[in-house]
Amino acid sequence: MRAAIFRDGDLVVDTMPEPKPGEGQVVVKTLACGICGSDLHAFHHAPKMVEMAERSGGGFSMDLKKDIVFGHEFCAEILDHGPGRQKTLKPGTRVCSMPIAIGADGLKTVGYSNDVPGGYAEQMVLSEAMLLEVPNGLPTEQAALTEPMAVGWHAVQKANITDEDVALVIGCGPVGLAVIAGLKIAGVSPIIASDFSPARRKLAETMGADIVLDPADTSPYKRWQEEAAPEGYDPKSWMTMMGLGPQLRPGVIFECVGVPGIIQQILEGAPKAARIVVVGVCMEPDRFEPFFAIKKELNMQFVLGYTPEEFAETLGFLADGKIEADALVTDKVGVEGVKNAFEELVSPEVHAKILVEPWR
Amino acid sequence: MRAAIFRDGDLVVDTMPEPKPGEGQVVVKTLACGICGSDLHAFHHAPKMVEMAERSGGGFSMDLKKDIVFGHEFCAEILDHGPGRQKTLKPGTRVCSMPIAIGADGLKTVGYSNDVPGGYAEQMVLSEAMLLEVPNGLPTEQAALTEPMAVGWHAVQKANITDEDVALVIGCGPVGLAVIAGLKIAGVSPIIASDFSPARRKLAETMGADIVLDPADTSPYKRWQEEAAPEGYDPKSWMTMMGLGPQLRPGVIFECVGVPGIIQQILEGAPKAARIVVVGVCMEPDRFEPFFAIKKELNMQFVLGYTPEEFAETLGFLADGKIEADALVTDKVGVEGVKNAFEELVSPEVHAKILVEPWR
Repeated sequence: MRAAIFRDGDLVVDTMPEPKPGEGQVVVKTLACGICGSDLHAFHHAPKMVEMAERSGGGFSMDLKKDIVFGHEFCAEILDHGPGRQKTLKPGTRVCSMPIAIGADGLKTVGYSNDVPGGYAEQMVLSEAMLLEVPNGLPTEQAALTEPMAVGWHAVQKANITDEDVALVIGCGPVGLAVIAGLKIAGVSPIIASDFSPARRKLAETMGADIVLDPADTSPYKRWQEEAAPEGYDPKSWMTMMGLGPQLRPGVIFECVGVPGIIQQILEGAPKAARIVVVGVCMEPDRFEPFFAIKKELNMQFVLGYTPEEFAETLGFLADGKIEADALVTDKVGVEGVKNAFEELVSPEVHAKILVEPWR
Repeated sequence: MRAAIFRDGDLVVDTMPEPKPGEGQVVVKTLACGICGSDLHAFHHAPKMVEMAERSGGGFSMDLKKDIVFGHEFCAEILDHGPGRQKTLKPGTRVCSMPIAIGADGLKTVGYSNDVPGGYAEQMVLSEAMLLEVPNGLPTEQAALTEPMAVGWHAVQKANITDEDVALVIGCGPVGLAVIAGLKIAGVSPIIASDFSPARRKLAETMGADIVLDPADTSPYKRWQEEAAPEGYDPKSWMTMMGLGPQLRPGVIFECVGVPGIIQQILEGAPKAARIVVVGVCMEPDRFEPFFAIKKELNMQFVLGYTPEEFAETLGFLADGKIEADALVTDKVGVEGVKNAFEELVSPEVHAKILVEPWR
């Protein structure tokens, strides 16, 4: 089969053997697979990523001397079942799945493993137990957004949202946009979103942000405070400082950038007692001043991935139209277009999500 | 009156005018006042501390060219009332108070202000509204521990403790010991405490730790896992990884050291989904690798101080014998002994809490 293969630090198009399903597994045809920021990171910093994963308890064990096929945000079609099959879902069924393959030798991450090729290949092997049928009529390219959208829904679940919250989303790449979609479903209002890119701000509005701003013009934290302050709120009164009289509404800030320095910036800007949900995946060492967090009694919840329930719910939200994510898909390419897409994704003005269609 | 005064970066004994009570204030005689790690930090790094406080939103505005009298952990006796007095408590009454003075020009921190001398002076001015009578019979030197013990009780309140939690306390200085006392009251079991110092480990046992260890010999995180693992727990099984079958009990880790590097160490050692309560007050820039926290979905709650309710509860715990903190007081000195005490407090083997008795 044809695939865009990560080989010797480069992305090349080549053929490779079709994967064979093991016990409880199915072979699928990849219909569409999104390119994720983590794939870009792996492309540019693979050795560091592997080292970091190993130091933090394993999970992404890849031999970089051997081929790897990226791609973990996919919608696929069942071709055939392996042994020990339940065959609940027939060949031809369109499915989504968390990118986890359950094999005889444990769990592997589809798209970050030498043994389990991801969605930049024409075929994949998935675990039957993990498959979710795409509900009737949901277009394939939207179903392929289940994985990145589930990341946002999970972040919102971990934020212990209340009716009083005023939310601030820092960074409106695919992660921030997924968080905005999740906040909208959770009924949070207002949702304030901040990004330097006009194109990203437009997408943030499309996904449901109530207020969008350019941090080059407006401090997101000051804008947050304007929204969170009730009538009669006086930040300088000792009554306010003692917790008496009108108080700011609770603040929940989503870090959706994932580069060094952003956490410190949020610690400096955040209001007292804010909850910060760190959704951006920063793999570099970072510097921060704990005293800002101490003095304001901030809470930081770091998050990653989603639960199987959240993943299934997200597919349902897409199918029910509760998440309308069409606008996120800015291009579709075949395996030959993957390398160029990796380069183009650096600019936030042109692209949000590019889908790979390996059958092209 | 006589006082140990922070002047030109040094601690000197001198006389100064007795403070005059304003509207709603009382003059008190300082009976005993603990020396806090923050006082030591202020002594060694005052300019940095003032700068840090200003950068993080104000609150400790001190002019270092003028005199400052430290001391915010005190028990005192009412001498006289100022104007606008309620006189609920008569002269001669022993009182504790949060170290906050409410004046015409706002809130000031007793012990970190040019205008409000702290407990290293013979007399202080306090706000009548903040006074708590020392319950009958509680010795003065234990009442003076209300403030540092309230810090621990507050940290435990902010930890969202559950019946299932296994707690780990990193660092058994006064802050860690106060946390252990709070955990004991909250019914957490087991409480595991870690410190390099044998004397501090002994105090940790006295305060109620169930397991104490020397991190030079035993990894606190491995010890934690031994306690948290139920029968049949298999960390390497994919069932466990998927959240199925026996799981570790929830982990709550209290950072009670407050120096750069300790947060990273905890992020590396912490089990998945652990809550980390940062009680140590690190005023330096720090370095950390967010990916450890991301991958394990850690939560970090930074805390500072206590609420008025928690402060009052803590005084009650001391009076009821629910906190027995006698062993913490390792020396008592007059104002002449303050400077030497600051030097001696560097060694954890000899001292935990030294009380200043300015009337000596």
